[in-house]
Amino acid sequence: MNNQKKYLIKLLPGGKSIKVSTDYNLKQAILDTGINIDSSCGGVGTCGRCKVRVKEGKVNTKKSKFISSKEKENGYVLSCLSKVESDLIVEVPRQKKAGVKIEKGRFADIESKIYADISKDELASVEIKPWIKKGTIVVEKPSLSYGTSDLFRLKKSIRENLGIKNCIVPIHIIRKLPLVLREKDWEVTVTVDKENSTLIDVQPGRTDKKSYGLALDIGTTSLVIYLADLENGKIINSESEYNPQIKFGEDIINRIVYANRKGGLGKLKEVIIDSINNLIWRLLFNSQVDADSIVSMMVSGNSTMMHLFYGVPPRYIREEPYVTVANKFSSSTAKEVGIKHIKNAYVYNIQGVASYLGGDITSGILATDMYKKKELTLFLDLGTNGELVVGNSEWMMGASCSAGPAFEGGGVKCGIRAVDGAIEKMSIDQKTYKCQAEVIGGGKPRGICGSGLIDVVGEMYLKGVIDRKGKFNKDIGNKYLKCVDDDCQYILVNGKNSATGEDIYISEVDIDNLIRAKAAIYAGIKTLLEEVDSSIHDLDKIYIAGGLGRHLNIRNTVIIGMLPDVDVGKYFFLGNTSVTGAYLSLLSEDKYRQSSKIAEHITYIELSVNMKFMDRYVAGLFLPYTDMKDFPTVEECLYSLDSKLKK
Amino acid sequence: MNNQKKYLIKLLPGGKSIKVSTDYNLKQAILDTGINIDSSCGGVGTCGRCKVRVKEGKVNTKKSKFISSKEKENGYVLSCLSKVESDLIVEVPRQKKAGVKIEKGRFADIESKIYADISKDELASVEIKPWIKKGTIVVEKPSLSYGTSDLFRLKKSIRENLGIKNCIVPIHIIRKLPLVLREKDWEVTVTVDKENSTLIDVQPGRTDKKSYGLALDIGTTSLVIYLADLENGKIINSESEYNPQIKFGEDIINRIVYANRKGGLGKLKEVIIDSINNLIWRLLFNSQVDADSIVSMMVSGNSTMMHLFYGVPPRYIREEPYVTVANKFSSSTAKEVGIKHIKNAYVYNIQGVASYLGGDITSGILATDMYKKKELTLFLDLGTNGELVVGNSEWMMGASCSAGPAFEGGGVKCGIRAVDGAIEKMSIDQKTYKCQAEVIGGGKPRGICGSGLIDVVGEMYLKGVIDRKGKFNKDIGNKYLKCVDDDCQYILVNGKNSATGEDIYISEVDIDNLIRAKAAIYAGIKTLLEEVDSSIHDLDKIYIAGGLGRHLNIRNTVIIGMLPDVDVGKYFFLGNTSVTGAYLSLLSEDKYRQSSKIAEHITYIELSVNMKFMDRYVAGLFLPYTDMKDFPTVEECLYSLDSKLKK
Repeated sequence: MNNQKKYLIKLLPGGKSIKVSTDYNLKQAILDTGINIDSSCGGVGTCGRCKVRVKEGKVNTKKSKFISSKEKENGYVLSCLSKVESDLIVEVPRQKKAGVKIEKGRFADIESKIYADISKDELASVEIKPWIKKGTIVVEKPSLSYGTSDLFRLKKSIRENLGIKNCIVPIHIIRKLPLVLREKDWEVTVTVDKENSTLIDVQPGRTDKKSYGLALDIGTTSLVIYLADLENGKIINSESEYNPQIKFGEDIINRIVYANRKGGLGKLKEVIIDSINNLIWRLLFNSQVDADSIVSMMVSGNSTMMHLFYGVPPRYIREEPYVTVANKFSSSTAKEVGIKHIKNAYVYNIQGVASYLGGDITSGILATDMYKKKELTLFLDLGTNGELVVGNSEWMMGASCSAGPAFEGGGVKCGIRAVDGAIEKMSIDQKTYKCQAEVIGGGKPRGICGSGLIDVVGEMYLKGVIDRKGKFNKDIGNKYLKCVDDDCQYILVNGKNSATGEDIYISEVDIDNLIRAKAAIYAGIKTLLEEVDSSIHDLDKIYIAGGLGRHLNIRNTVIIGMLPDVDVGKYFFLGNTSVTGAYLSLLSEDKYRQSSKIAEHITYIELSVNMKFMDRYVAGLFLPYTDMKDFPTVEECLYSLDSKLKK
Repeated sequence: MNNQKKYLIKLLPGGKSIKVSTDYNLKQAILDTGINIDSSCGGVGTCGRCKVRVKEGKVNTKKSKFISSKEKENGYVLSCLSKVESDLIVEVPRQKKAGVKIEKGRFADIESKIYADISKDELASVEIKPWIKKGTIVVEKPSLSYGTSDLFRLKKSIRENLGIKNCIVPIHIIRKLPLVLREKDWEVTVTVDKENSTLIDVQPGRTDKKSYGLALDIGTTSLVIYLADLENGKIINSESEYNPQIKFGEDIINRIVYANRKGGLGKLKEVIIDSINNLIWRLLFNSQVDADSIVSMMVSGNSTMMHLFYGVPPRYIREEPYVTVANKFSSSTAKEVGIKHIKNAYVYNIQGVASYLGGDITSGILATDMYKKKELTLFLDLGTNGELVVGNSEWMMGASCSAGPAFEGGGVKCGIRAVDGAIEKMSIDQKTYKCQAEVIGGGKPRGICGSGLIDVVGEMYLKGVIDRKGKFNKDIGNKYLKCVDDDCQYILVNGKNSATGEDIYISEVDIDNLIRAKAAIYAGIKTLLEEVDSSIHDLDKIYIAGGLGRHLNIRNTVIIGMLPDVDVGKYFFLGNTSVTGAYLSLLSEDKYRQSSKIAEHITYIELSVNMKFMDRYVAGLFLPYTDMKDFPTVEECLYSLDSKLKK
C-alpha cells in the first residue's frame, strides 16, 4: 500500500490544515499543526480531554466511556483513539489551557521575591564565588633564555594567580592564544571553569565585559529562568513559561510513557530545548545583555525532567526498582545539549537523590537553612508530585508520594491551573450553602485550582456539605446540590456567573481524587517521621515549597488532613525553591558543592513498597483522618461549630 | 571599482580555466584550479620556480632575477609576482614534482621495517597497555534496597574492576546507558580514555569487536600513518603520502610565512586534514577495519606541523624569541580537529621541546634506547631541518640547525626528492671525471636527491674536481665542466641519458648550498658537545633518523665534513623514528608518559644566537673543515689518493 501523505485534514475554527498518510493518529495530526490539543494521559484514551468533532470524512475510532451515544451520533471522537481514513473536516473545541500565560508581574519584582523566599541574612551570607572564575593576569614574556611555550607560561600564571592547577586549555582557545596574549602586552583576562579545571575563554587586557549566568528550573508544569550578574549576584531579569511537554502528558508518568514511544524522547527533548532557547532569547533581548557574556547555566529539575532535558531515556524511573540513569549529569557546553545563543557557556546541573526525589528537591533544601540547623524541619514540595524531606544538620530522610495531578487542577472535572480565572479561595455560607469565590486576577471564574479545591473540600467538610468519607450529605437541604440518580454535583458557581457560561461544580469523584492526594501526602509525612522515631509534634518548622504553596490556606489543608495539625506559626511558604537553589549554586561554588553533599546526605525511602505507608494512606481516606486524635484542633472546631448550630 | 570575478584565465596545456577578479594573484589563481604549481619560497619571488608564460592578455608583474630579458620578451613571468589585469591564456610548464608518489613497497613489509628501526628486544619489551583501556565488567543490578542510579553503579564497577576513579561519562554515552546495561543482563564492555579518565564507549555484553589505533607522523615533506591492533600491537596496514602543504612552501619557514597571510592558516590546515582523512579512508578500505573500532590516534610531528594540524597560528615560531604556542596540545576527539571517518576516536599528540625541536624528535628519542642507557649517544634527525639531541639516561641536550632544503633536493638547480628517478649514489672516474650514477627505481635519472648530492660533492672533493672551498678546479682538464665566464656547471648526466632530455648538472651555487647545510649540522654537533665539555670522540653511538638517512653513504658525509670522523661502526640508521615513537605511545601508556618525560628532560639550546655555533659554522664552510685534525681519516685518504696520483 502506498503510504504517501494523501489525506487533507482541515481544522475548525481557524481553518489550519495538514496532509497525513492513511491510519495517521488524529490527535498527532492536530498537534502537528501546532494546535495545543488538551490531554493529560499522554494519548492513551484515559483522560477524555482530546475530544473533537469530525464534521466530514471518516475515521477509524475506538469506543470510549468519554463519548456518550448522543455525542457519537454528532461525530464526536477521542482524537487520540482515532485513525485517519479519508479527507477530514474536524472541529477542535476551544482549548481551556491553550495560550494561557503565567500572569505578568508574578516575577516582576524579583529581588523582593528572592528575599521573601529565603531570608535576607541567608542571601547576604552567600559568598559570590561562581564555578566560573574570571581574572586578569599577567603572563610572563618569553625570552631567548626563557623560551617555554605560550601555553606553559599561561598555565603557570593561572596556577600562581588563580590557584588552579593543570588547567585544561581546549584546542579552540589555543588557536587564538598567541594573538590574544600579545595584544595587550601579555595582560589577559581569563575565564576558567573550576569544576572541570578548564579554560573557557581568554581575552586581551583587562576587560570591562561583565559575565553573566543563568539559573533554570525545569518543572513538570513550568519553566523559570533567571539571568544573574556573576560579579555582584544581582538578578538582571527573569522569564517563565509553561513546560511545552504538557501537551504530551500532564504528569511525569505520562511523559515517561510518551518518551517510550518511537521518536517520543526526541520530541520531548526538542520541545523543552526549543522553549529554553526561546526563554534565553527573551532574557537577552529584554536585558540587552550580550550572548557571549553568558558563561554558565545551572539547571535544576526533577529526575524525569533532567533525563528529558539531556535526552536520556527515563523509562526505568517508572519500572521497579525505579532507578534513574543518572542523578547528576556531566557538565557540558551549552552547544552539546542543544542550547543556542550561548553556545560557549557551560551547563551544570544540581544532583538529585533518586527517581522521585530529584535535583529540584536538593536545590530546594539548599535554598533553606535546614541542612545547617539542629531544628527538626519538614520540607515539602507540593506540585504535580509531593516530595518531602525531614531532618536537620545531622541527618536527612526523603521520600516522594504520588499525589496525582489534583493539586495542579488535573483529575478534577472543573480543575485548572493556578492562572487568571482560577478560583483560589472559597467560603461556604453555613445556612444557604452558597459559595463565595476569590478568583486569581479578579473577573469571572473559569475553573478551580489546587488551593481552591482544598478550600472547597475543607469548607464543605466543616459546613457539613460532605461527610468524613467525602460523600455528599443529601438531607441538609443544600439547593446547590444537583443529583441525577447517585451522581451528584455541588454547583460552586452558576453558569451565568462563570467565564465559560457553564456551571463550575465539584463531584464526589473530584472529592475522592483530592482525598487520595491528601492522604498520600499525610501518610508520607507520618511514615517518614516514624522511620526516625519521631512524630509530627517533634517538628520545629514546616517549609512549603512549590507552586501550590503560593495560594494555600494552611488552615484548610489541616482541616482536610493533608498537613499536620500543629501550630500554624511553624509553617513557612518558600515558593519556587528549585530555581532559588540553582541561582545560589550558580553564584557560589561552595553552594554548588554543598548541593551535591545534600543529595548524598539524604536517605531515600521508597514509599510505594512500604507497608506502613499503605496503612497510613488507607487511614487517610477519611476527613481529616481515621484517628481524630491526630487532628485535635479540627475536632475542637467541628465540636464548636456543631454546638453553634445546635444553639 | 567593481571587484566581481570578471577575468577568465585559461591554462595550457590542458585548458583548465578559472574566473578571478582584477588584481588577483596569478599563482594563486593557478593553485585554485588544482594545478600544483611548483614553489619553495611560499610565493615571495625568491625561488624562481613558479615561472609561467603569459601567451595572451595583460598582467602587472614585478621584475625578477629569475626572468632573463629574452624570457621577458616571450611573456615569461613569475606567477607569484603577477597580478591579473585582463583575460589571460597562460602556459604552465610541466611540474617536475607534481603527481610524484612515494615509491610503492617502501612500507610494504612494515613489521620488518619496524624491527629494523628499533631492536626486536626493545619492541618485545613494550607492554601493550594503551591509553585506551577496554574491559568487560559486570555492573551491580539495582534493587528496591539498592536504588542508586545506573551511572553510579557503572562508575563503581569501573573503579573496582579497571582501577579508574571518577570516570567522566559524557552525555552522549549516558543517553544510551540504560538500554546497553540491560541488554546483556548488566554485562558490558567499556572503553575508557585513561589520560582524561573519560568513558569513550560502552557496548552490551562481552564484545569480540577489536579496537584499533592510528599512529601518524606529520613530516614537513611526507605523512606516514600506521593502523595498529591495540590488543596485540600488530601493525595491520600503513599508508603514506606527500604533505600537500608543500605547494604553499617547501620548508617550515615558508609555510609559516604562508600561514600569516589572510586565510593562509585555514588553507594549510584544510589541506593537511583532507590528506589525513584520505589516508585514513585508504587504511580502512584496504584493511576492511570498521571505522567505529578505531578508538585513538597518536600524532607526532615538528612544532610547526603540529600548529598547522591543530589550526594554531605558528607565527611566533619564526620571530625572536622563537616560542611555540604549545608544545603539547590537549587531547581531543577526532571530530574536534576535523578528522572524519573515526569521529569518536581520541586524538593525542607527542609533546615537543621547543619551536625547532618538536614532538617528532621526542618521539624519535622514545623509539631508541638512548634515554635508558649510560652510553653517550648523538641522535640526529636529518630532513628539511637538522635536529640533534645528545645525552644519555642522566641528561639530554637538544638543538636545531637550519640546514636549508638542500637535503630534500631544494635550493639545488637539479635537486629533487628521494623518489623514483633521483640519483642517490654517485661515483666519479679519477681519470676521465665521468660520473657514474645509481638511480632510485632504476631507469633514467630526472635529478639528484640529498644523498646523491652528498655523494657528488664528496667524490668531487676527493677526486680533485673542486677545492676545499667548493670551487671548481678549472685546470685539471675536466671536459664535463662547462663554463660561461665565471659560471661553471659540472655535467653529471648528459641530456641524452636523462629522463627529461636536459643535462643534470651541479653548479658552484649548488655546492655552496650543500656546504652551508653540512657546516650547520657539524657546527651544531660540535657546539652541543662542547656545552657539556665533551668531544666527538666521547660519543658511543650516533643514531641517524629521518628521510635522508635511508640512502646515505656515511663515508661521504664524513668526507664532506658533515658528520664526525669517528668509527663508522658507531653509526646506526633508524629511518622514520617519529612514527615509530607515535606507534609505541599508542600501544603503551608507559611509553606515552615517558615521551612527555623525555620532552621535559631535554635542555634546549638556541643555536641561532649562540656565538660558538657561529664560529664553528664559519669554520665548516671548508671541505671537510678548517682544521683538518677533526677529520684525520679524510686527511689520510686525501694523502693516499694524492700519493697514488703522483705514482
